[in-house]
Amino acid sequence: MNQLHILRIQCPDQSGLIAAITGVIAAHQLNIVVMKEFVEPVSNTFFARFEISGDLDIEQISGKLQESLPPGTQVQLHTERKKDIVILVTREQHCLSDLLVRHFFGELHANIKAVIGNYDQLASFTKKFDIPFVHISHERLDKEVFEAKIIAALEEFQPEYIVLAKFMRILSPAFVEQYRHRIINIHHSFLPAFVGAHPYRQAYERGVKLIGATAHFVTNDLDEGPIITQKVINVDHEYSVTGMVQAGHEVEKAVLAEALKLLLEDRVFVTRNRTVVFD
Amino acid sequence: MNQLHILRIQCPDQSGLIAAITGVIAAHQLNIVVMKEFVEPVSNTFFARFEISGDLDIEQISGKLQESLPPGTQVQLHTERKKDIVILVTREQHCLSDLLVRHFFGELHANIKAVIGNYDQLASFTKKFDIPFVHISHERLDKEVFEAKIIAALEEFQPEYIVLAKFMRILSPAFVEQYRHRIINIHHSFLPAFVGAHPYRQAYERGVKLIGATAHFVTNDLDEGPIITQKVINVDHEYSVTGMVQAGHEVEKAVLAEALKLLLEDRVFVTRNRTVVFD
Amino acid sequence: MNQLHILRIQCPDQSGLIAAITGVIAAHQLNIVVMKEFVEPVSNTFFARFEISGDLDIEQISGKLQESLPPGTQVQLHTERKKDIVILVTREQHCLSDLLVRHFFGELHANIKAVIGNYDQLASFTKKFDIPFVHISHERLDKEVFEAKIIAALEEFQPEYIVLAKFMRILSPAFVEQYRHRIINIHHSFLPAFVGAHPYRQAYERGVKLIGATAHFVTNDLDEGPIITQKVINVDHEYSVTGMVQAGHEVEKAVLAEALKLLLEDRVFVTRNRTVVFD
Amino acid sequence: MNQLHILRIQCPDQSGLIAAITGVIAAHQLNIVVMKEFVEPVSNTFFARFEISGDLDIEQISGKLQESLPPGTQVQLHTERKKDIVILVTREQHCLSDLLVRHFFGELHANIKAVIGNYDQLASFTKKFDIPFVHISHERLDKEVFEAKIIAALEEFQPEYIVLAKFMRILSPAFVEQYRHRIINIHHSFLPAFVGAHPYRQAYERGVKLIGATAHFVTNDLDEGPIITQKVINVDHEYSVTGMVQAGHEVEKAVLAEALKLLLEDRVFVTRNRTVVFD
Repeated sequence: MNQLHILRIQCPDQSGLIAAITGVIAAHQLNIVVMKEFVEPVSNTFFARFEISGDLDIEQISGKLQESLPPGTQVQLHTERKKDIVILVTREQHCLSDLLVRHFFGELHANIKAVIGNYDQLASFTKKFDIPFVHISHERLDKEVFEAKIIAALEEFQPEYIVLAKFMRILSPAFVEQYRHRIINIHHSFLPAFVGAHPYRQAYERGVKLIGATAHFVTNDLDEGPIITQKVINVDHEYSVTGMVQAGHEVEKAVLAEALKLLLEDRVFVTRNRTVVFD
Repeated sequence: MNQLHILRIQCPDQSGLIAAITGVIAAHQLNIVVMKEFVEPVSNTFFARFEISGDLDIEQISGKLQESLPPGTQVQLHTERKKDIVILVTREQHCLSDLLVRHFFGELHANIKAVIGNYDQLASFTKKFDIPFVHISHERLDKEVFEAKIIAALEEFQPEYIVLAKFMRILSPAFVEQYRHRIINIHHSFLPAFVGAHPYRQAYERGVKLIGATAHFVTNDLDEGPIITQKVINVDHEYSVTGMVQAGHEVEKAVLAEALKLLLEDRVFVTRNRTVVFD
Repeated sequence: MNQLHILRIQCPDQSGLIAAITGVIAAHQLNIVVMKEFVEPVSNTFFARFEISGDLDIEQISGKLQESLPPGTQVQLHTERKKDIVILVTREQHCLSDLLVRHFFGELHANIKAVIGNYDQLASFTKKFDIPFVHISHERLDKEVFEAKIIAALEEFQPEYIVLAKFMRILSPAFVEQYRHRIINIHHSFLPAFVGAHPYRQAYERGVKLIGATAHFVTNDLDEGPIITQKVINVDHEYSVTGMVQAGHEVEKAVLAEALKLLLEDRVFVTRNRTVVFD
Repeated sequence: MNQLHILRIQCPDQSGLIAAITGVIAAHQLNIVVMKEFVEPVSNTFFARFEISGDLDIEQISGKLQESLPPGTQVQLHTERKKDIVILVTREQHCLSDLLVRHFFGELHANIKAVIGNYDQLASFTKKFDIPFVHISHERLDKEVFEAKIIAALEEFQPEYIVLAKFMRILSPAFVEQYRHRIINIHHSFLPAFVGAHPYRQAYERGVKLIGATAHFVTNDLDEGPIITQKVINVDHEYSVTGMVQAGHEVEKAVLAEALKLLLEDRVFVTRNRTVVFD
């Protein structure tokens, strides 16, 4: 059976792009398993994702594509593989445990290299699954020092993506910049409603009839990064804040798992402050 | 077949309330068809709604209930009937036409006494259904004068509820106060996200993956009144603003129809800035 | 502004198809606005739908595509336009009124040429919208004679699609064959649950917690045709059969409207007993 | 803080029931935290569930209630507590792991006494959480002998409820009868669609646009027991059978967790072949 390769293209839109790309693919006797494309109208940018099967020389095909496409085109081509990730947590377990169980049974398209927690409550659970848990407390530390310690730990594990699975500290712009579009966060509200702390308390006070969760890339603006996935569930007047928090946990873990799957399968592009998701 | 009566109770919570209420009902050989109750914990307020069948003297039963319950209790008891409403519109047809069609086929639990529009685009459609259409333009009028004209028209039709079915003018505090908890509005976003004008444009720019609509009571704070019903639908990167508007219309009319049904069946209570909805 | 053209391709899958198609498009300086493709793995069939802008000679491009693609390829190319439809009804109004209102306000991508009813209850409503209503009673008629009358009426209006908007008579194989994949029906259950008559009664008896509706192409096997769209809503023990019917109406009209939109925009292909829907 | 007590009543409907029940409660200075009631119209049966706070003598109050209510009334009154359960599995992990993780973090309102598997694949995972895993292979055993072994194991653990978390063996009527309305199963389809084996394969072949899962009580009729909870998710032509299975797992575990929560909180009544669920 042939290996599957993922090709991602991003370039200024113009006529003939698909013909050019698929011409290169056809000329090398490769087979397109799936293709999805989209032209973002505001920036006039073309995005495409292909799954290709067949024997190929990655450098050669990438080079041919680059030649055939406009200057400034971003061509990404790689053979499908699991990506390395590190998960950051604080004290809540529901998103972490969901990811660890999927990983344990081979159902997460990633290698979890480590879990880093600013508290140690989740250490013993993590270790059940033979995943290293690194405890880096933020207490009595300057933010800068705290983040330097996290960065040092991350450098050891070299993750391609960092997953904030209910990590309740705000990361500095310097940190975020270092992992641009490589950090995803689960926010416990239907953004942009209820930015910041205590969204369920805010939701309760406002008397909303739906609560939700949002998985998004982390940028320098708190809770303002490009959104990947959102889901909501119904609530009614009988829900207390605690009831909303419990019900919300179910949505949070579902949304994070879904967004991470999309990301790990190379289905997500970022344009302006929005995502293009080829699901 | 017996007539159905709706009993609504609101009072400070204390032990024995349900026993007291149902004691009165049982003592008069009345039958409880459905009962729902809720204690709002912040204000410690008891809310209940009963559907009762059997022959009864409304004043007598109301009096007995008032005697048996704490001072300050609000007792509302009436025989089930269609309520009179007036609908206010601007130019968009989807919510209005939905209500007119339901009304025409006897499926709206209300009598639509009139439609008032600040434009006349929807006049001919309204008249197809033999409902009076009153055109009151806001152009070249002070808000006060404009609203005085609307109030004069409303006084003629004496509606129990006013439905803002995509009425795009902001009502003054004086107007709102006159119809406290009797005006409902459909807002074209999942409040509190995207308050104010152009919510779909805002939603597009923010790159959300769900859009929604909210039916709420109108209060003096724009888009801040107690929420009755909310719904969302999925969108993705392929939706333009126009596409969101079109898809949003489907949700708006569904949400308004559902909220209005709840209101017309006396299922909605307001407490603080929240609703208790016995659906 | 350029006109939009819809190109649909269906052929046995092989390498190089997209390159061949997009090569023809590019060679004629046409622009691909949107493209979607899918390979059905059981029959190994390639399906694609393109929206193309630019000046083109339909016959010329169709010919070039046919030449460049494998024998047996189905090429459909036409300039975007509203399609002619006829709606068949019995006595229930909710799907019909929904379509008539959309049509009246220019929001249905179709011309409703006529409504045919085996009862005349919906005649006066239909005529409000200046659409011909043809009453063809099935009473005291052989099925064959009844259908011959409908076919005669249809021949007058020459619809491209026939919409069964709660038409409660079963059509004969001969009738269905004449309009193969051109008749769509709304069935009032989540197929394949509750095939046949009285699905809400069946749903009530079974005690389901969701009820739904299904829009599908009509084939010779009752309620067995390819499914286009399905939706469900929550119900609980408080729903009577009548309550389910009422709630179900909301889903039925939403599902039919959505399926019809997909069909009218040429987004639906049929393969085996399944649909490929490029939404 | 007062303990919470759960009172459940089931009896033939007649006037004055709520007055009688709440009269007893009020007479003992107990407080009703929540009450829900329902009259099932076909059998004319009254169902109610109360959460009561205050000091009470269970036997005394039960006796008083029994006296005040019609002959044949079922009164269940107990102080809120975690229930003992045993989980039966085959080889699929997703439902089991979900329950084990919730249990580990104290979020399942139950004590998992043991997991019984007819394969041993899930043994090591179960033991991570210090829960006994009993391997009882069905291979080379008569059904009767196989079930006798399971019953022997169950007798050791004395569960109040048995959870079939993807247990792929059909239980005999004798077994089922022994645990009447105490066995719940997760079926991997939206029942009554796709009864029996391979529902995702059936769903794929039928080309449905939604797939679902159903949690229900086990009765002697395969997949025909009273339904507690159902959910669906959207699928489209791009889903293979395997893709449906994977997506379905997410729904299955969510549905089972929700149904089990309702059951463990004493919110579920069975009447005829339907459930009354006070959620």
